[in-house]
Amino acid sequence: MDHGGDLLSYESHYSGELIDFSSNINPLGTPKGLNEVLINSFKSLESYPDIKYRKLKTSIAKYLNCKTENVAVGNGAVEIINNFIIPARRVVVMTPAFSEYEKRAIAHGKEIVKISYKEDFSIDLVQLENDLKEEDLLILGNPNNPTGLRIEKQILLEIYELVTKKKAFLLLDEAFYEFCPSDYDSIELFKELDYKNIGIIRAATKFFALPGIRLGYCCTSQEQVAILSKIELPWSINSLADSAGQFIFKDITYIEASKIYIKEERNFLLEQLTQIECIVAYETHTNYILIKLHNLEEEYVFHFFLDRGIVIRKCSSFKELGHNHIRVAVKNRENNLRLLECFKELEKKGEC
Amino acid sequence: MDHGGDLLSYESHYSGELIDFSSNINPLGTPKGLNEVLINSFKSLESYPDIKYRKLKTSIAKYLNCKTENVAVGNGAVEIINNFIIPARRVVVMTPAFSEYEKRAIAHGKEIVKISYKEDFSIDLVQLENDLKEEDLLILGNPNNPTGLRIEKQILLEIYELVTKKKAFLLLDEAFYEFCPSDYDSIELFKELDYKNIGIIRAATKFFALPGIRLGYCCTSQEQVAILSKIELPWSINSLADSAGQFIFKDITYIEASKIYIKEERNFLLEQLTQIECIVAYETHTNYILIKLHNLEEEYVFHFFLDRGIVIRKCSSFKELGHNHIRVAVKNRENNLRLLECFKELEKKGEC
Repeated sequence: MDHGGDLLSYESHYSGELIDFSSNINPLGTPKGLNEVLINSFKSLESYPDIKYRKLKTSIAKYLNCKTENVAVGNGAVEIINNFIIPARRVVVMTPAFSEYEKRAIAHGKEIVKISYKEDFSIDLVQLENDLKEEDLLILGNPNNPTGLRIEKQILLEIYELVTKKKAFLLLDEAFYEFCPSDYDSIELFKELDYKNIGIIRAATKFFALPGIRLGYCCTSQEQVAILSKIELPWSINSLADSAGQFIFKDITYIEASKIYIKEERNFLLEQLTQIECIVAYETHTNYILIKLHNLEEEYVFHFFLDRGIVIRKCSSFKELGHNHIRVAVKNRENNLRLLECFKELEKKGEC
Repeated sequence: MDHGGDLLSYESHYSGELIDFSSNINPLGTPKGLNEVLINSFKSLESYPDIKYRKLKTSIAKYLNCKTENVAVGNGAVEIINNFIIPARRVVVMTPAFSEYEKRAIAHGKEIVKISYKEDFSIDLVQLENDLKEEDLLILGNPNNPTGLRIEKQILLEIYELVTKKKAFLLLDEAFYEFCPSDYDSIELFKELDYKNIGIIRAATKFFALPGIRLGYCCTSQEQVAILSKIELPWSINSLADSAGQFIFKDITYIEASKIYIKEERNFLLEQLTQIECIVAYETHTNYILIKLHNLEEEYVFHFFLDRGIVIRKCSSFKELGHNHIRVAVKNRENNLRLLECFKELEKKGEC
């Protein structure tokens, strides 16, 4: 299990409908009116998408408050990550991290340098300074997956300075950006620097509840956009995803409501989980929570929840975490309560 | 202009709706009932597509009459071509050819070997034998784009034998397969050999009139499927494309009707074009026709047609063809007649 969201593999294990706590999708669902937009775009399937994605990039630039010339797009965040990796000399990742950083590096035969997060999941700047070399691509989840923590603004600026000094490149994977407290916006932060040596990736996947549509985007220097354009697969975003991307970012009501909703539910779920004695629920800035199991293994807990119709994310594929961590998404109140009940049941049975 | 279908770049040059003769899409449009399938799949956008595309591969295998284990899928034929190129030592292409063979090779820093087709656009087997080396990836369009010719069965078997002898790999790009006369089916032809050293790529793009949906597929050895699976981007086919792929291949009525329609229109258009004195319309097996202009340059002819609401494909991006070739799609009778009228007008003006 390298990724959440693979419900098809578990459907036969439960008679009812499974609740997916393994992928971290906005529980409010997609923006209202999207279906109509898609229906009105069906005819566009009979033509190639605009190979330059001009309207889509304009829509994204407006949402990100950056120039269209600084926008690159891709088939989910992962295609853009892949395309940054292709021309890199080495790939430097902090672990535990989203498995695709390493997989994409392997697919392209790149040397990988792994640096562990400190015990509190903060970044070891001394280690980073030691390990980082010229032309390295440093990929950082911001917030990181599965730990859920966002890099502090001051630390991020220090990392950027270090990367610049070393003539390396900083790639921020901000796929969960909108779920986080808005104390700073990397796209604003690096605007004056014209995104030199930095790429900031975001996506429709998580916040707009559209993992199936495959739409990621990136803000970077024009020089980097040009490099990416030679690597990108043509037409990799399908016509309906193109249309969706011209619609969803305008829905400010949905965006604001989602932010408020997630904040409330995150606080509620985290507070409740903290009261379960047999686990440690880690602090989080986003819409998922990393949990350490005291006396149980992930496999047992996974099946305990699956028997009750809930799919959680085992974390042993993040090798540094061993077999005693799980990750759960923040969902709507009804589902969060069902999750909590299961934890309480686990606790009551004295099994942890 | 490296690709057809980029109408957006020319919209401002003509007041009415442009007719696209530059991309070669089934003029009958998409299979009936597809819109309903898509509407019923909207909910699937809120989940990740099946990362293994199990149902999709089953549907494709049934259509191709091969085993599911031999099927790989991708974001259009081009993603699969790209994924075969990544582990190759050198990329060998026959020219003129679809520009992405070369572009994808460049994107991954591969050495490219180009061999020219003979004057009649047939394959120079002696040259091929001279140039092909161990671990080379030989990519052949079958039928080739823009020439429109399919490789004869006996020649294909000879090429396969040569490729095997040289320990190279043969990749057939059969994106236009269904438009061609059905004298042989490569997937049947290489079935007994378990597709050792061969990959056969097809797509929903052209024949099912779905360039916007991004769905390509490939039949190859299980060993090769495993290699591709480590290279493929996860979830690169979006949920609606996944659903479409579980539906369209079953529509035998549409498939048969399309084949008959294209055959008739191809014969009609080719015969009529042969009567235009200032051009040479080449023999074709598929739904596009390569045309040599006697005394005119592509740029002039392109604008002559654009002024009349028709976008044709200039062919100078296929470098070997110089500036005096164009390519036109076979469309429906009404549009084909409009195209012919424009050619007659060009002829009458004595401009060619």
